[in-house]
Amino acid sequence: MSEKKFDIVRLHHAEVTVTDLDRARHFYCEGLGFIETESDDNHIYLRALEDANHHCLVLTKGEQASLKHIAYRVSADSDLDALDELFTNLGVSKRWVEAGEEKGQGRALRIQDPGGIPVEFFYEMEKADRMLQKYHLQGNVKIKRIDHANCLITNIDDLYAWYSDNLGFRTSEYTVKVDEDEESMWAAWMHRKPSVHDLALISETGPRFHHTGFWMDDAKSILDACDHLASLGYYANIERSPGRHGTSNAFFVYLRDPDGNRMELYTGDYFTNDPDWEPIKWDLADPQRATFWGAMPPKSWVEEAVPVEDIHTGELLPIVQFQKKQKV
Amino acid sequence: MSEKKFDIVRLHHAEVTVTDLDRARHFYCEGLGFIETESDDNHIYLRALEDANHHCLVLTKGEQASLKHIAYRVSADSDLDALDELFTNLGVSKRWVEAGEEKGQGRALRIQDPGGIPVEFFYEMEKADRMLQKYHLQGNVKIKRIDHANCLITNIDDLYAWYSDNLGFRTSEYTVKVDEDEESMWAAWMHRKPSVHDLALISETGPRFHHTGFWMDDAKSILDACDHLASLGYYANIERSPGRHGTSNAFFVYLRDPDGNRMELYTGDYFTNDPDWEPIKWDLADPQRATFWGAMPPKSWVEEAVPVEDIHTGELLPIVQFQKKQKV
Amino acid sequence: MSEKKFDIVRLHHAEVTVTDLDRARHFYCEGLGFIETESDDNHIYLRALEDANHHCLVLTKGEQASLKHIAYRVSADSDLDALDELFTNLGVSKRWVEAGEEKGQGRALRIQDPGGIPVEFFYEMEKADRMLQKYHLQGNVKIKRIDHANCLITNIDDLYAWYSDNLGFRTSEYTVKVDEDEESMWAAWMHRKPSVHDLALISETGPRFHHTGFWMDDAKSILDACDHLASLGYYANIERSPGRHGTSNAFFVYLRDPDGNRMELYTGDYFTNDPDWEPIKWDLADPQRATFWGAMPPKSWVEEAVPVEDIHTGELLPIVQFQKKQKV
Amino acid sequence: MSEKKFDIVRLHHAEVTVTDLDRARHFYCEGLGFIETESDDNHIYLRALEDANHHCLVLTKGEQASLKHIAYRVSADSDLDALDELFTNLGVSKRWVEAGEEKGQGRALRIQDPGGIPVEFFYEMEKADRMLQKYHLQGNVKIKRIDHANCLITNIDDLYAWYSDNLGFRTSEYTVKVDEDEESMWAAWMHRKPSVHDLALISETGPRFHHTGFWMDDAKSILDACDHLASLGYYANIERSPGRHGTSNAFFVYLRDPDGNRMELYTGDYFTNDPDWEPIKWDLADPQRATFWGAMPPKSWVEEAVPVEDIHTGELLPIVQFQKKQKV
Repeated sequence: MSEKKFDIVRLHHAEVTVTDLDRARHFYCEGLGFIETESDDNHIYLRALEDANHHCLVLTKGEQASLKHIAYRVSADSDLDALDELFTNLGVSKRWVEAGEEKGQGRALRIQDPGGIPVEFFYEMEKADRMLQKYHLQGNVKIKRIDHANCLITNIDDLYAWYSDNLGFRTSEYTVKVDEDEESMWAAWMHRKPSVHDLALISETGPRFHHTGFWMDDAKSILDACDHLASLGYYANIERSPGRHGTSNAFFVYLRDPDGNRMELYTGDYFTNDPDWEPIKWDLADPQRATFWGAMPPKSWVEEAVPVEDIHTGELLPIVQFQKKQKV
Repeated sequence: MSEKKFDIVRLHHAEVTVTDLDRARHFYCEGLGFIETESDDNHIYLRALEDANHHCLVLTKGEQASLKHIAYRVSADSDLDALDELFTNLGVSKRWVEAGEEKGQGRALRIQDPGGIPVEFFYEMEKADRMLQKYHLQGNVKIKRIDHANCLITNIDDLYAWYSDNLGFRTSEYTVKVDEDEESMWAAWMHRKPSVHDLALISETGPRFHHTGFWMDDAKSILDACDHLASLGYYANIERSPGRHGTSNAFFVYLRDPDGNRMELYTGDYFTNDPDWEPIKWDLADPQRATFWGAMPPKSWVEEAVPVEDIHTGELLPIVQFQKKQKV
Repeated sequence: MSEKKFDIVRLHHAEVTVTDLDRARHFYCEGLGFIETESDDNHIYLRALEDANHHCLVLTKGEQASLKHIAYRVSADSDLDALDELFTNLGVSKRWVEAGEEKGQGRALRIQDPGGIPVEFFYEMEKADRMLQKYHLQGNVKIKRIDHANCLITNIDDLYAWYSDNLGFRTSEYTVKVDEDEESMWAAWMHRKPSVHDLALISETGPRFHHTGFWMDDAKSILDACDHLASLGYYANIERSPGRHGTSNAFFVYLRDPDGNRMELYTGDYFTNDPDWEPIKWDLADPQRATFWGAMPPKSWVEEAVPVEDIHTGELLPIVQFQKKQKV
Repeated sequence: MSEKKFDIVRLHHAEVTVTDLDRARHFYCEGLGFIETESDDNHIYLRALEDANHHCLVLTKGEQASLKHIAYRVSADSDLDALDELFTNLGVSKRWVEAGEEKGQGRALRIQDPGGIPVEFFYEMEKADRMLQKYHLQGNVKIKRIDHANCLITNIDDLYAWYSDNLGFRTSEYTVKVDEDEESMWAAWMHRKPSVHDLALISETGPRFHHTGFWMDDAKSILDACDHLASLGYYANIERSPGRHGTSNAFFVYLRDPDGNRMELYTGDYFTNDPDWEPIKWDLADPQRATFWGAMPPKSWVEEAVPVEDIHTGELLPIVQFQKKQKV
């Protein structure tokens, strides 16, 4: 049994920056079928079809595409105090977000994780109408819920240990780079809910945010989403064609919003919480790792990602070239 | 090569009677995603998503659910004259329908076939916007086109020969009833287009009209239609649960409109036009014939069907109990 | 945070009785694509396609179809001692199962729950090859993992409280019976993993075992299973046609093995572990509760279920007619 | 009505060259689920799941990947004599193929069409067991039938007229190249059966054979094929990722066999035989033409194709660079 004094339930929402709220609204609501719960001059609060709460995605007006924060939900309000104490002890940069500062949400604790990613923890959120069985009110694109966040960072060994040891994240799969018979970790798929991941950490120039993953019921739903987006004029926003990942075994498509924020429509992972789960190891050189069917991702998918915000200043963090660990 | 002087292309549309046009409009348009091309006080003209013509289904105000006619399209206007001559020679009851009497349609020849079914032949129809690749304008129920008509008649031996010999219909599959080792034909799936059928003839109390079949792309689309209809409040209109037919190998669901007119959403048949095709024979007693997965159809599906109209008087034809052929 | 000293992860396997092992092997392996991990004269140990452990289903030779036990996995070996202490305090009938008594499994604690259901808790199980990405070795029926157990019991109020208060089960959905404006609980969908259920409790003549639910990826996979089973000759084993449940929103089909043990192929539920989840209430009289599309289950599905075993004697427990609670 | 004395039913089979029959057998049978009807030292005769005849694909041992011929079925044996007379009148190079020269097939007339493509016409073929409803004997890849042939030729204006005027091919869609406001035809999708095509003609360096298209029931079946092939080790043979074509509206994936012969797995087209069908025009520059979802085909798909055989000598025809028509 865990002796931790808190319980992180799952990745619950993300807040990204867009430069034109109306343009973004069209993409996310008309294009992707998100439901607008509430909005003001600077924000649109969106939920997906199975969400019973206020939002799983916040679009905030800004200068360019970026990540403002990702948020984990905890199982009790007192967990937030336990986390605050933990982060004090760990020397992590943090601040409290007042209830209502993010609409619909109770008090929250926001940190800059040791990889530079802005991360929030919260417990309370307003309820909202759940659309799951209101099929006739759903559109052609049926996103059910948020699934995971994929972050590019430069210190995976440290960060992997930090999430594992301090926050109770487990690992479903990971990728190693093999140089002259020496393995080093290149990426890890980590989870709190018993799926493949809530959080993917990838060794890359960073800190940057690669994508938010959203769950759909099946592969056909993902293809239907492509038809709808393409017909609506968003064909150029379909960045990486549908396929199956080796890692995670999920079926995917990747999209870019009009500002360049990336999302994955994702389906098909598996149960990961058996106590003797042995993380699956992939070799970075395995041609079926990224796409089980062998196709290469496009250059933009490999190279582009958005910057992340300093939780205190709101400035975008400087991006550091990833340096391969040197052998001693 | 056929020496026939006409070429029947396919079943093209059906006209059924409804008692309340607005109620029917809600079911067919909101419920099933048909597109209203045109309407007047007594008719609604509907087309499906791949249709490039004015209508594949006409709803006409009437006293009760019934079939006014089914219509086949021919490949040239002169085919209609050739058919007129044929029907004169065959002594078939017929009348010409003036261009425009059925909105959007050129002149047409309407007959009462020897089984009592009101059948129309026409060549010309107005074009209409085709929605096939306008995915973003499609709703949750994606009916692509009409596929077939299923008629209950009392004289299958004669009628089968009539359609085969005079109109060039081919047979993909048929069902026999076996009594003391003697087989008699019970039903036939007949086609002009190279699919399983444009016309199914079933030995039953008749003449009655059992259902119009509409094509959908795949089984998932049929399940999506059920979700949408059920959510919209039409769950009681889903008469026979989704399943696979033995005969035709198609995946299906059967619906009743608010007046009781029945339709099948249908997918999955096969190419039938090879010159050496040997019709597949089913035994009426085969438990996999009606449902390949073994389930029995509900009683209403077996027993209920709508009457058909006299092409001259507009009266409903009397219904005659089907009599099993007597052995001599 | 929970103060419980144990953590039940999920429903992990079931053991049912069959009268003819070879006949059952054909149904479960050829028919349903389960993989035989190991067998002896009296048992077949089966796993599904994503299982990394020895078994999720045990078939044991017996006199008639019955449930020998369902088993939950716990997250640490010491959890078993904590549970033993709990059950002693609660006065629950129990016994220890030695490591290896069930092949591939460590020590286990078996109880008769207060509803009469034989339930096991265990931690350790041997690993086995995982077939998830070996698509070319999979057959047409792709069952991924066990999902839930559905039990018929006569004391739902007590049993619901017992699982909630003592074992930390949560409730996703429940059904009430309304008599003269007074509601009483009729059924509950309870879970440890964050899905709709690990355990369904239904008020019925009991204790009996209604079915084991298995997870498939999507509706199309369930339809493919029907085609394969029907073609192989098992069409009469498809008891309840595919459809969508109102409760759980899952897409399903129900099967009976050659002895009558029932299983559900199941897909499509949703995340249930948010701390403010409000269980969904259904009225027993709602026509969309059992089948969202309105169809009635067949009589056998409503009336038939198998008896359960006494964990000490191996005898089948007597079945008691369900008595509606009397108003005082 | 057509006054033609013959009726071409559909594209019926293709014969391609492979360098290693055993390697090819593994790819086509283990990989793609084709059924081997018959074979000898130099040929493997394959059929698909709905085929009731001897073969839809012939693999013949040769020096390199190439097309030996594509074959159309006609509706009567006498049609072959009518075609022979036509080709004599047209001055087309031809030869008769004796019954049995191609196993299972009656006499056939083989021509080099004016674009250089080796084309056969035949009527008679041996029957074979049809696997369509033997679901339990089908593998994971469920190819139903051949659909079309895609040929690269240098004289589209002439060839398009030749197929239209002499052989009764219709056109469902076509692509034009626009240079300084002048349109010239770049490609045409032509059919005899009422689908999008039996034959696609593309303006390119030629004569070359681009691919044979095979029909599958739905998009999910095509994704399942990718999983099976990738798992079996054929991931590098998946050349172009699944997607939707603008032209034809079909969902596709493209494969290369171990020698480089290309095939398309294809689903989703529409009925094309209405007499007033207006061919759909695409602009070669339309970014949604090749992939409705916007993705570019890989370089190999655009540039590579196999040579075709001289029907008399068996030599491969020289390949001529495509020359853009000069304005006068």
